[in-house]
Amino acid sequence: MPEFRKDPVTGRWVIIATERSKRPTDFVREAVEIKGANNCPFCPGNETKTPPEVLAYRSNGSAPNSAGWRLRVVPNKFPVLGIEGELNKQGEGLFDKMNGIGAHEVIIETPGHDKTFASMTEKEIEDVLWSFRDRMLDLKKDRRFRYILIFKNHGAAAGASLEHTHSQLIALPIVPKRVREEVDGARKYFELKERCVYCDIIHQEREHGVRIILENKDFVITSPYAPRFPFEAHILPKVHDSCFEEAQSYEYESLAKITRELVARMEKVLERPAYNLMIHTSPFGEERNDFYHWHIEFMPKLTKVAGFEWGTGFYINPTPPEEAAKFLRDAAV
Amino acid sequence: MPEFRKDPVTGRWVIIATERSKRPTDFVREAVEIKGANNCPFCPGNETKTPPEVLAYRSNGSAPNSAGWRLRVVPNKFPVLGIEGELNKQGEGLFDKMNGIGAHEVIIETPGHDKTFASMTEKEIEDVLWSFRDRMLDLKKDRRFRYILIFKNHGAAAGASLEHTHSQLIALPIVPKRVREEVDGARKYFELKERCVYCDIIHQEREHGVRIILENKDFVITSPYAPRFPFEAHILPKVHDSCFEEAQSYEYESLAKITRELVARMEKVLERPAYNLMIHTSPFGEERNDFYHWHIEFMPKLTKVAGFEWGTGFYINPTPPEEAAKFLRDAAV
Repeated sequence: MPEFRKDPVTGRWVIIATERSKRPTDFVREAVEIKGANNCPFCPGNETKTPPEVLAYRSNGSAPNSAGWRLRVVPNKFPVLGIEGELNKQGEGLFDKMNGIGAHEVIIETPGHDKTFASMTEKEIEDVLWSFRDRMLDLKKDRRFRYILIFKNHGAAAGASLEHTHSQLIALPIVPKRVREEVDGARKYFELKERCVYCDIIHQEREHGVRIILENKDFVITSPYAPRFPFEAHILPKVHDSCFEEAQSYEYESLAKITRELVARMEKVLERPAYNLMIHTSPFGEERNDFYHWHIEFMPKLTKVAGFEWGTGFYINPTPPEEAAKFLRDAAV
Repeated sequence: MPEFRKDPVTGRWVIIATERSKRPTDFVREAVEIKGANNCPFCPGNETKTPPEVLAYRSNGSAPNSAGWRLRVVPNKFPVLGIEGELNKQGEGLFDKMNGIGAHEVIIETPGHDKTFASMTEKEIEDVLWSFRDRMLDLKKDRRFRYILIFKNHGAAAGASLEHTHSQLIALPIVPKRVREEVDGARKYFELKERCVYCDIIHQEREHGVRIILENKDFVITSPYAPRFPFEAHILPKVHDSCFEEAQSYEYESLAKITRELVARMEKVLERPAYNLMIHTSPFGEERNDFYHWHIEFMPKLTKVAGFEWGTGFYINPTPPEEAAKFLRDAAV
């Protein structure tokens, strides 16, 4: 019998196919193949092909916008939002609109064109996390912004248009609906219990163990109870913390380690899948709170979203999270 | 300058790229190619390859589950939900679950393996609409169900696993979150204005004309003001009506005509795109109301949903709806 399961934070139901569940090899998809640097605008030496950098980590005192960087952050050459101007909210009959103000930046994570989080060093991934933090703290000074989403699209099937490994950042003047739902869901739970729902989940999941993928001293990675997608994974700090950008330096180190391990296992079990990774953190102005718990969501791209999902917001997940967690736990790399 | 636009019913914001907007030929995708019948379980003569039919339209008095049908509805051979049993709501620590009770049926729309809504006759599409109605009215008798979603996935990229043209129906014991948001949004607007928000949209859009794709005496097709996807289209009855299954027979006739015309234009302008089509109607038990207006959503599959969309619920649409509507208006077929 399939099961309906409810996400305890957002209240979203999913359908888990518990009977004819799909194993990693059952999914029809293509492994992400990296074809080669070929004029890649993100490769060292091609710095003029991107807008001037807003941040770079350089070990040897090399000049800005030239080779010699370990990591580089640049405005997106084709931004979905514009950085200049005012919001200018307007009506259009019964409709509402405003100027597309925001920041859209690209984090070029390493000079190595063909690296992935699995082949980068822990130190390189730690640098990436620090760059996320540095850019968030800087953009936060801009009073127009209410939220920053940091995300990574890996592989064309997950929406990546360039293959050189990179993340993106979009700063928004409004708190997105999906974020608002999650934060409000966590707040409601707190009002009822005076406890953080994510802290409760971590406690319960560590006790049961069946949905735990990985754990180190600071972080735990779970297959969530009601995941929208097969092999979805959440990386959560063990100690309550409401925002990513104020984590401690030992936490970034610890997070780099466990993230690298997760991606390596995903690459092994699912044969280099395309994936999306997103940081979920508190909106600006309410960064420090007792109810929301920042975390990272990792979603391999194995299934297609179709009419049923678009029409209902329900997701059909052909792999129970308990099985996904077991595959990933057992896949030592 | 890109624009944020807000959906007036759900409150969902989208980002519309107003400057470097994408024309139909800018999208990278494959046309839907129909390869051939080759043992297709939906073709006439193969009736034993599906579960026994629950409805069939037969012109010549042919026997059930044999050839001779114009349209056939069968339970899905691999249902995502099971029809037998009770809901049995249960807790699992802080989590909630229930049995996956529901109906999952397939509407085999025509015996012709390689037909699409553009090559089927108006009468054939009208039959399809009647079968949707007949199945909804029948399944509504089952008191366990609260909502039925009827949808069509056309092409592998849109999630279709069999190419013989078909729609699907899923009956659910809960009103999905996405439906609830839409119905509640419409209710709130009604409470404020004592008017249906969709009726107001239709009125305003017909006056402006820029987002109108097609119109006949009973229906209007618009590019919505804040569409998530390029070339998204909504088919709305002109006269207020809250549920699909109680429409008049002349309306099904009229809807068949305009739907066929829309799909033909989409196939021309976008070169046979994969697409999803969903009927949005009122939940059971509140079918007749003044605030919700049933409609059909049509979404060609031209872009990929990536990390930004998953993380925020915001969508980035590279084609302004005004331009999409013009392309479709101008594409006489």
